[in-house]
Amino acid sequence: MEDGVFTVGIDLGGTKLLACLIDENWEVKEVMKKKTKPDQGPEAVVDRVVDVVKTLIEKSGQSRDRLKAIGIGVPGTVDSAAGTVIYAPNMPGWSQIAIGAMLHDRFAFPVTVDNDVNMGLLGEYHFGAARGYNYVVGVFVGTGIGGGLIMDGKLVHGANNLAGEFGHMVIQRKANSRECGCGNRGCLEAYAGRKSIVQKIASRARDGYTSMFKDIDFNTLTSNKLNNALIQKDRLVTKTIKTACQDIGVGIASLLNILDPEVVVLGGGIIEAMSDFMMPLIHQAVKNHTLSYDTRKTQIVLSQLGDYAIALGAASYAFSQSQTLSPSRHL
Amino acid sequence: MEDGVFTVGIDLGGTKLLACLIDENWEVKEVMKKKTKPDQGPEAVVDRVVDVVKTLIEKSGQSRDRLKAIGIGVPGTVDSAAGTVIYAPNMPGWSQIAIGAMLHDRFAFPVTVDNDVNMGLLGEYHFGAARGYNYVVGVFVGTGIGGGLIMDGKLVHGANNLAGEFGHMVIQRKANSRECGCGNRGCLEAYAGRKSIVQKIASRARDGYTSMFKDIDFNTLTSNKLNNALIQKDRLVTKTIKTACQDIGVGIASLLNILDPEVVVLGGGIIEAMSDFMMPLIHQAVKNHTLSYDTRKTQIVLSQLGDYAIALGAASYAFSQSQTLSPSRHL
Repeated sequence: MEDGVFTVGIDLGGTKLLACLIDENWEVKEVMKKKTKPDQGPEAVVDRVVDVVKTLIEKSGQSRDRLKAIGIGVPGTVDSAAGTVIYAPNMPGWSQIAIGAMLHDRFAFPVTVDNDVNMGLLGEYHFGAARGYNYVVGVFVGTGIGGGLIMDGKLVHGANNLAGEFGHMVIQRKANSRECGCGNRGCLEAYAGRKSIVQKIASRARDGYTSMFKDIDFNTLTSNKLNNALIQKDRLVTKTIKTACQDIGVGIASLLNILDPEVVVLGGGIIEAMSDFMMPLIHQAVKNHTLSYDTRKTQIVLSQLGDYAIALGAASYAFSQSQTLSPSRHL
Repeated sequence: MEDGVFTVGIDLGGTKLLACLIDENWEVKEVMKKKTKPDQGPEAVVDRVVDVVKTLIEKSGQSRDRLKAIGIGVPGTVDSAAGTVIYAPNMPGWSQIAIGAMLHDRFAFPVTVDNDVNMGLLGEYHFGAARGYNYVVGVFVGTGIGGGLIMDGKLVHGANNLAGEFGHMVIQRKANSRECGCGNRGCLEAYAGRKSIVQKIASRARDGYTSMFKDIDFNTLTSNKLNNALIQKDRLVTKTIKTACQDIGVGIASLLNILDPEVVVLGGGIIEAMSDFMMPLIHQAVKNHTLSYDTRKTQIVLSQLGDYAIALGAASYAFSQSQTLSPSRHL
């Protein structure tokens, strides 16, 4: 394998860096994690990324000059053509940061930069739940709700790098509908992201609704704790998650009516932690709100890759983008 | 011009057939209208289409063997690859009708068959308001609400020929939201299509709301009569249309958040009749519900072609599809 080329993919998270190295057969050869420490500023984070790439290459026993490209997924708005992070809300100081150029200065290899959600979807497309499809919608429910779109095998970035913001489709257009973090009202994310779910549970618990979560600190309410409450049949949590499934299903139905994809991949912390409970309920809600649902062949599937989806997608994107001058089976 | 080739485009409406003939420079050489008489059944309608094509060619002075292809837009669900009308709700007996093959039998020229809304959008893309863009969303508000999507210069049909059903995105997800003709609840069309607008006006008039439309037959309430009422500042009509603009704007905002196109073309009978009143209100509602609206370069424009949009789109589609074996600037 010394003669082959390879890429490195990086998931630049607000808390941790996850990285992987894949060879030219797109086999995963090495993975690793490191803390991001975003409070130390963009320059320091780039140093840490450089360390990760070097360590990963060393550990894999590859020769550094066989590195073909580096791909990185960033939690924020990205101008992927320019390789610039426009804005990353959870990373202090990350506004208009030319991370592509900064990394290219250190390595002299091509660097692809994209949104973390897009890279996660691409991971599922190349390695996971969306393999074999060409027209894919991804919906990821975590703290917020993100999404991505692959059409004819290509990521859709949109005219302003803002395609796939599924969390901000409006599912409740009344003037008094729930306020969203984006400043608007009635967005899907304001109803069914983890932040909103926890807020609803907290407010109902304060109102005296019986629940095992009556006296806890709601900042510590993780997806896994919610799942435990579901398993123990906590009434408040069950009711709240059921409503979230209804809202997510309505949103996905709108996506089917608008886009008519071959497959919808569902992922993110909330869905992955409670998939047994949520997937059938979401499926039913999609059925109830999609035009001619029964005549469609569209699949609704659970993501498969877990933690390394973004790093894997970034590594594969680096490969396919570095091959755009020659025909490629991948993109 | 006798040496050039040409195509014929047909808008097969529930009431009338509109047809046009365009030359190889995509210049419109001839147009004509004829009644559809859909109650006489599919075979009779195809006979009438054949008559229109023959008359149009005669009138234009072309030689019939220079006809390159025929394009037809049909008001219903179409399997465009097969040339089959799957279902056309306003045309009795039009279920699984292989109109492409039927016309091809008569002329021995290629026939393209597609949805009327897609063809109207393609008309605006090639000849009208969306010229010069490559990533286009069309929203058409008539009796119902239809739509279409052009990405990378190509019509998006979806995995099941159901892409672009923007009227059925859910804008109100409550259990008691308005019922839609599709059988679901809360669809945009149930709030802002002409049928719903007229129902709302009728029900409020019955409840004693002051209006010039208190005692009329609401089946006769056309888009132009609504516009007259607006001009005369009828309170009920003004209020109802304002709310419809809010609903349409919310729907378009969701489309921007999902797709991030370069341009949105707005058309259809309702919008075209009341564009001066509606366009600014819709624009404001889009602004209020779109993520990072101010950073986008997306345009929201009024359709330009009026009655012949569908026939023109169908004629251009016939040209571009008949050229798919050779490189084409059009598709």
